[in-house]
Amino acid sequence: MFSSTDHLMMARALRLAERGAYTTRPNPMVGCVITQGDEVVGEGFHARAGEQHAEVLALQAAGERAKGATVYVTLEPCAHVGKTGPCANALVAAGVARVVAAMRDPFPQVDGEGFKTLQAAGIVVEGGLMEAQARTLNRGWLSRIERGRPWLRVKLATSLDGRSALASGESKWISGEASRQDVQRWRARAGAILTGAGTVLIDDPSLTVRLDDGAAFVPPLRVVLDPGLATITRGRVREGDAPTLYVHAPDAKPPRGIDAQTAAAPVHEGRFDLEAVLKLLAAREINEVQIEAGATLAGAFLAEGLVDEILLYVAPVLLGDRARPLFDGLHIDEMTQRLNLSIVESRRIGNDVRLLLRPEPADAGTA
Amino acid sequence: MFSSTDHLMMARALRLAERGAYTTRPNPMVGCVITQGDEVVGEGFHARAGEQHAEVLALQAAGERAKGATVYVTLEPCAHVGKTGPCANALVAAGVARVVAAMRDPFPQVDGEGFKTLQAAGIVVEGGLMEAQARTLNRGWLSRIERGRPWLRVKLATSLDGRSALASGESKWISGEASRQDVQRWRARAGAILTGAGTVLIDDPSLTVRLDDGAAFVPPLRVVLDPGLATITRGRVREGDAPTLYVHAPDAKPPRGIDAQTAAAPVHEGRFDLEAVLKLLAAREINEVQIEAGATLAGAFLAEGLVDEILLYVAPVLLGDRARPLFDGLHIDEMTQRLNLSIVESRRIGNDVRLLLRPEPADAGTA
Repeated sequence: MFSSTDHLMMARALRLAERGAYTTRPNPMVGCVITQGDEVVGEGFHARAGEQHAEVLALQAAGERAKGATVYVTLEPCAHVGKTGPCANALVAAGVARVVAAMRDPFPQVDGEGFKTLQAAGIVVEGGLMEAQARTLNRGWLSRIERGRPWLRVKLATSLDGRSALASGESKWISGEASRQDVQRWRARAGAILTGAGTVLIDDPSLTVRLDDGAAFVPPLRVVLDPGLATITRGRVREGDAPTLYVHAPDAKPPRGIDAQTAAAPVHEGRFDLEAVLKLLAAREINEVQIEAGATLAGAFLAEGLVDEILLYVAPVLLGDRARPLFDGLHIDEMTQRLNLSIVESRRIGNDVRLLLRPEPADAGTA
Repeated sequence: MFSSTDHLMMARALRLAERGAYTTRPNPMVGCVITQGDEVVGEGFHARAGEQHAEVLALQAAGERAKGATVYVTLEPCAHVGKTGPCANALVAAGVARVVAAMRDPFPQVDGEGFKTLQAAGIVVEGGLMEAQARTLNRGWLSRIERGRPWLRVKLATSLDGRSALASGESKWISGEASRQDVQRWRARAGAILTGAGTVLIDDPSLTVRLDDGAAFVPPLRVVLDPGLATITRGRVREGDAPTLYVHAPDAKPPRGIDAQTAAAPVHEGRFDLEAVLKLLAAREINEVQIEAGATLAGAFLAEGLVDEILLYVAPVLLGDRARPLFDGLHIDEMTQRLNLSIVESRRIGNDVRLLLRPEPADAGTA
C-alpha cells in the first residue's frame, strides 16, 4: 500500500518528467524525486537524450541526504550502460533505502534488471504507483518499444457540423488563434508530423513548431507521404529548421541533389501500406506521430485501425452541408458499424473546444 | 456601487428564482431574499402562475424583521393587480428600507411603476445588479415580452463528424443515456417542444417530459408543424399527459373529433412562414420553444436567423461521410459566409460533451 505522501511525490515526479516532453525523444520522459520523510531533498528530470538521467540529477541535488532516502522515479532505473552510466548502480552507491517506481521499463536491456540490481543491494523496491499516468505520459515511447510502431495522433479542426473545409478546399482559420497556438505544443511533443502530398499542394503548410513561450524543443521530423514524389521540389515543408522525409512508392526515383531524406514504403493497389509506413518511422526512433493532413489520409489511417488518439479542435462555426467531411472514406451503413471513441479530455481553448479522443474497442459504445 | 454582500444575496435570489424553472410559465421566474445586514431573514420564489409572488413569500417569512430590511429581488416588483396583489405595495406596507432589483420589468403594466411606488414611499431603490444573469435566466419570457416571439432553442445530437443520422434515417441513440436524461430537464424548462411531421413519421417521439428526480413540472405544449395534417391521426406525440398543437397550412382542414389543438399559419411557396409560427406561439404565452426535429426543419429556422441558442450534444462516435448532415439547406460557399456561434458553455454529460451555443453577429468570428 502506498501512502498519500507516496502519491504526492510520484505526482511531482510525473510533472517533472513532463518538462522533457519537447526534448527527450527518442528517450522516454523520466522524473525523479528524492525524499527524507515528507521533505524533498533532491529532484531531477531527463531533459535530452545523451544528457544525464533524472535519477543522477536528483542524487546530485540530494548529496549526502540521499543516504537512507526514498526515491520516486517514473520509470524503472536503467541497469545498462547507455550514453550515461546505469542509474541503478548510482542509487546503490548513494545508499538510498527505498525506490518507488511508477512502472517497469519494457526496454529489452532493462526490463526488470534495474529492480534486480537494487534489490540485490538490500534496497526496498516497490513498483506500479500511478502506473497508468506514467504509461500515458510515455505512450509514444511505449508504443514504439512494445508495438514496434509510433503512437499515432490525428490532429483535426472541425466546424460544429463536422466539416474540415469548404467545398472549394478552403480550410484555413476554421479554428481560432488560441487553438492554433495550442497545436504548436502538441507538435513539439511529437517525433514526426505527417502529411500527404495533397495537403502540401493545396495548403502548403510549413509544419514547423512555433512556440510563443520560447520553450526549447527538438524540431520534429516532417514526413510527406508522396508516392510519386510529385511535391519533392516545392513547398514550405522543405523550408525552416527541421528535417523532412519523403516517403515514396518503391518505383519512384528521388531526384539527385535534393536536400531531403527519402524512404520507400510498399504500395498495394495504389495505396501506401500505412502500417509499413509507421514501422519505417519506428525504425527511425519516432515515438509519436502527429498527422496533420486532409480528410482522405486521416480517414485512411482511421479505417485501418491505426489511430491511437484524435486531437479535435471544434470551432463554433457552421460550414454547411456542401462543405467537406471530416473524414473521407468512412462508410458506415448501420449503427452497429459506427466507430465509438471515448473523450479522454474536453477543454475550452479560446473560442473553441478541444477534445482528446481515443477509439474504443468495438461494441463498447454508449448505446 | 454594490457591495459583495449585495452580490452574494442577489446570486442567492437568482438561484431561488431558478427553482421555478419548470413551473412558473408563462410568468417569469423571480426570486427574493430579505436581509438585515448580512443575515437572511426571509426568502421566496415564484413557483407557479396564480400562486404567490416571491416578494410576498419572502415578506411572510421575514415577518416583523422586514421592517428596515434590504430586499433583493431578481425582477422589479409588480405594481399592477394581477392574479395576486401588487408586490410593491406589500413591500411598502412591510416598511422595508431598501430594494435592490436585478432588472426593470419590461411588462407594459409594470415597466418602472413598481420602482415609482417604492420610491414614493421613501424606499431606496437600486436596479441593475447582476442584470445580465437575470436576463439570461428569463430569456424566454423577455423574448416574448420584448420581441413578441418565444426564445428559440434547437436541441441536436451529433456525432463528432457532424452527422445527426445514418443515410437510412436511423438516428436513435447517437448520444448517451446521461445526455438523453439531460434533454428532459431542458424540455421541462420549455413552454413548447416543436417538431415536424417528418420526425413524427420516422422517429415517432412522444416529446413528453420524463424526469428521473420526480421534480414537479408543467407539461410543455407539443407542437407539430404539419402543413397538410398528414400525421394528425397517429403517433406517440398525441399520447401522454401533455397537450398537442398541430400547426397546418390555411387550406388544410382539421378532421372532426380529434382531441388535439390546431392552428393555421401562413405558407409561402410550400413552406411555413416560420416567424409567423413563432408569433402564433407567443400569442399562446409560450416563452421558450425547444425544437427537436430533423436536419431540414432545424436548418430552416437557422437559415432564417430565428435560432437563439443551440443545445448540441456531441457524442464521441463517427458515423461516416454517407450519414446525414446536422443541418440541411445550409449552403455556404465562402468562409466569409460561414455561420459563427459562440460557446456559452461546454460540459461533459456522461460520455458526451454538451455545448450551449448562440449565433454571433456576422463577422464577429474567430478568424
